[in-house]
Amino acid sequence: MLESLVQKNDRKIVLLVLDGIGGLPVKDGRTELELAKTPNLDTLAKRSALGLHLPVDQGITPGSGPGHLGIFGYNPLSHQIGRGILEALGLGLEVSDRDIAIRGNYATVERVGGRLIVKDRRAGRIPTEENKRITSKLSEAIREVDGVEVFFSPGMEHRVTLLLRFPEELPEGSDRIRDTDPQKEGLEPLLPEGENEASERVASVVKKLLQRVEELLSEEPRANYLLLRGFSQKPKMESFEKRFGLKACAIAVYPMYRGLASLVGMELISFEGQSIKDQISTLKRVWEDYHFFFLHIKKTDSYGEDGNYEGKIRVIEEFDAHLPNILELNPQVLVITGDHSTPSVLKGHSWHPVPVLLHSPYVLGGTSERFTERECLKGELGIFPAEKLINLMLAHSLRLAKFGA
Amino acid sequence: MLESLVQKNDRKIVLLVLDGIGGLPVKDGRTELELAKTPNLDTLAKRSALGLHLPVDQGITPGSGPGHLGIFGYNPLSHQIGRGILEALGLGLEVSDRDIAIRGNYATVERVGGRLIVKDRRAGRIPTEENKRITSKLSEAIREVDGVEVFFSPGMEHRVTLLLRFPEELPEGSDRIRDTDPQKEGLEPLLPEGENEASERVASVVKKLLQRVEELLSEEPRANYLLLRGFSQKPKMESFEKRFGLKACAIAVYPMYRGLASLVGMELISFEGQSIKDQISTLKRVWEDYHFFFLHIKKTDSYGEDGNYEGKIRVIEEFDAHLPNILELNPQVLVITGDHSTPSVLKGHSWHPVPVLLHSPYVLGGTSERFTERECLKGELGIFPAEKLINLMLAHSLRLAKFGA
Repeated sequence: MLESLVQKNDRKIVLLVLDGIGGLPVKDGRTELELAKTPNLDTLAKRSALGLHLPVDQGITPGSGPGHLGIFGYNPLSHQIGRGILEALGLGLEVSDRDIAIRGNYATVERVGGRLIVKDRRAGRIPTEENKRITSKLSEAIREVDGVEVFFSPGMEHRVTLLLRFPEELPEGSDRIRDTDPQKEGLEPLLPEGENEASERVASVVKKLLQRVEELLSEEPRANYLLLRGFSQKPKMESFEKRFGLKACAIAVYPMYRGLASLVGMELISFEGQSIKDQISTLKRVWEDYHFFFLHIKKTDSYGEDGNYEGKIRVIEEFDAHLPNILELNPQVLVITGDHSTPSVLKGHSWHPVPVLLHSPYVLGGTSERFTERECLKGELGIFPAEKLINLMLAHSLRLAKFGA
Repeated sequence: MLESLVQKNDRKIVLLVLDGIGGLPVKDGRTELELAKTPNLDTLAKRSALGLHLPVDQGITPGSGPGHLGIFGYNPLSHQIGRGILEALGLGLEVSDRDIAIRGNYATVERVGGRLIVKDRRAGRIPTEENKRITSKLSEAIREVDGVEVFFSPGMEHRVTLLLRFPEELPEGSDRIRDTDPQKEGLEPLLPEGENEASERVASVVKKLLQRVEELLSEEPRANYLLLRGFSQKPKMESFEKRFGLKACAIAVYPMYRGLASLVGMELISFEGQSIKDQISTLKRVWEDYHFFFLHIKKTDSYGEDGNYEGKIRVIEEFDAHLPNILELNPQVLVITGDHSTPSVLKGHSWHPVPVLLHSPYVLGGTSERFTERECLKGELGIFPAEKLINLMLAHSLRLAKFGA
């Protein structure tokens, strides 16, 4: 329904994501946002629409994938991203409709009476450095199999991510391939087997690839085999521009978030530096070229995950100091929110609703004093599903026609 | 989706149901909860997550069945409990997968030209004492029919509940049997007819049973026949433990609520006495044996139904006095709520959202001064569907894995 109402115009929308921004009381009964000194956010909050979004559902803690899909306007339950694809994105690999992403473990196998037996599914958790050496060896030796390009990317310890790039777009279901990890030591590795014609074709390439890997690793003392699981392809998602009529770009530092933005077809802006200041300069540089700007600030989440509430507060304060530079651009709609909460006391993502600030000329405002969890509860947006945020951004930029006569 | 995220641990959850707790203004513009003096609840409310749950939908008044199923985490629309089953539960009959429960009315019939005609569908609303005498007579004379055990239980006036217990589990749909009550006087009673093979088998037992009842009642002046309706079997519901990984028990006095808890597989705790104090002593006694404790307090609803707001206030105050004894156990999650509202001014169940208090270390708190309808509106949980309460209880006891990477 929403999409049938979308009409285009040139008004600008900024979606500013402070990753993991929501928190819980950490000191004197106050949360990170409450403890932070944020004069600019305070002023803005007083004349903005406030509320909280529910990333997936009551009580559900989202990963970064579902957390971002929701605020991008894609239902996180009906658009699930395979683990292999997410790992690939996190490693900075670009994924396309021609790709199959796979999570791999280096493992130790042994021949026992002609049978190959898995002795250690994690190759004794080899050091990351050893992983890098082995992965480089594979990368150099195996560039393609049967015309399919192969990319290897080392992870931590025994983990590695593979990407197979086929010469043409793959049909849906091409990733329906059985894991080769038998999940238990003392068993034979399984063969990759496809569930359908398309995935059987992919599986046959994987079989040949595994033979070459086995030969190349045969002299390794520990990592002499590769177990594969989580075969996945890029989820079919209608692009952000097609769906919402917005030419969109992402100004993000970390590969995972650049990857998530690229999944919905946002353009990725390259820029020097990694600071909030660098991101805002970049925003100014590309201001005329897009309608929608996704700015992703990571460190609020990183400090939350570490349980370092003082660090989280510092990032909030740093952001606050830069806020006037964004307001200077005078976007029609500015949204400040997170993809999920990361309370320092939980040292991880959580299920708590996420504060939302929406600034536009068409809000009530005056409900709240600050941009904090408790002040957002008093706001005019209430507690609403994350995927409805796009409705609000479109409406406030006057891009939604009337529904019905 | 929820169920795929559940992980087990030993943290304790208490779900304390004050039946029909929600109210409306009764005096000086204040509700029962607002008029009650509740120093302990007030203190707890200040540091808890508050909100209101919507039992079924806006404007929908739930019976006790849907009211409880919702807060147990079962969608009350997709899990409907047959009237016969609910009546049986209310009478304290245990129901199993081998049972068919039936609602009966004693009726007066007359033979007119060889045809049996219903003269009075309610047998002149015979006194309950007469019902008891007649039901005892039937109970003694008819213990089984064709190897199927038969239980009779007298209700008020002309009402009676029957339970047929078959030797083995009944397939689904065995209760699809036409009512024998013609719904109008002057008509013949209908024959019980099954819609399918399984229910036809049940119907044939019912026919034989009815013949014997007719013979036994032939000398009765008024209650000389039995009309049957609401054939129902125990709904197939995945057990609470299977679904949510929680070993659960019910500490409830009244048969209906014990029955509802047993429908989802909670264990029923036996105990002496009927007071809130007795229930809390029982909670302490079994504290080590379960993860989830459903405590049901009935009298808030009973007084509400009577329109006796002072009585309702007294029960709330009595509960408040005992609250410290529950807190002493230090549950990881304590929820205080109702299954629905029963405003004294309406003298019955109502559709109004029901106050919820959730106490756990992982809440914001500080939003509200008391546990009342109006203070709960300010809380961090908002107004949410009753069936999402289980998500919150699981999340706050750290039992839900992250959704997506």
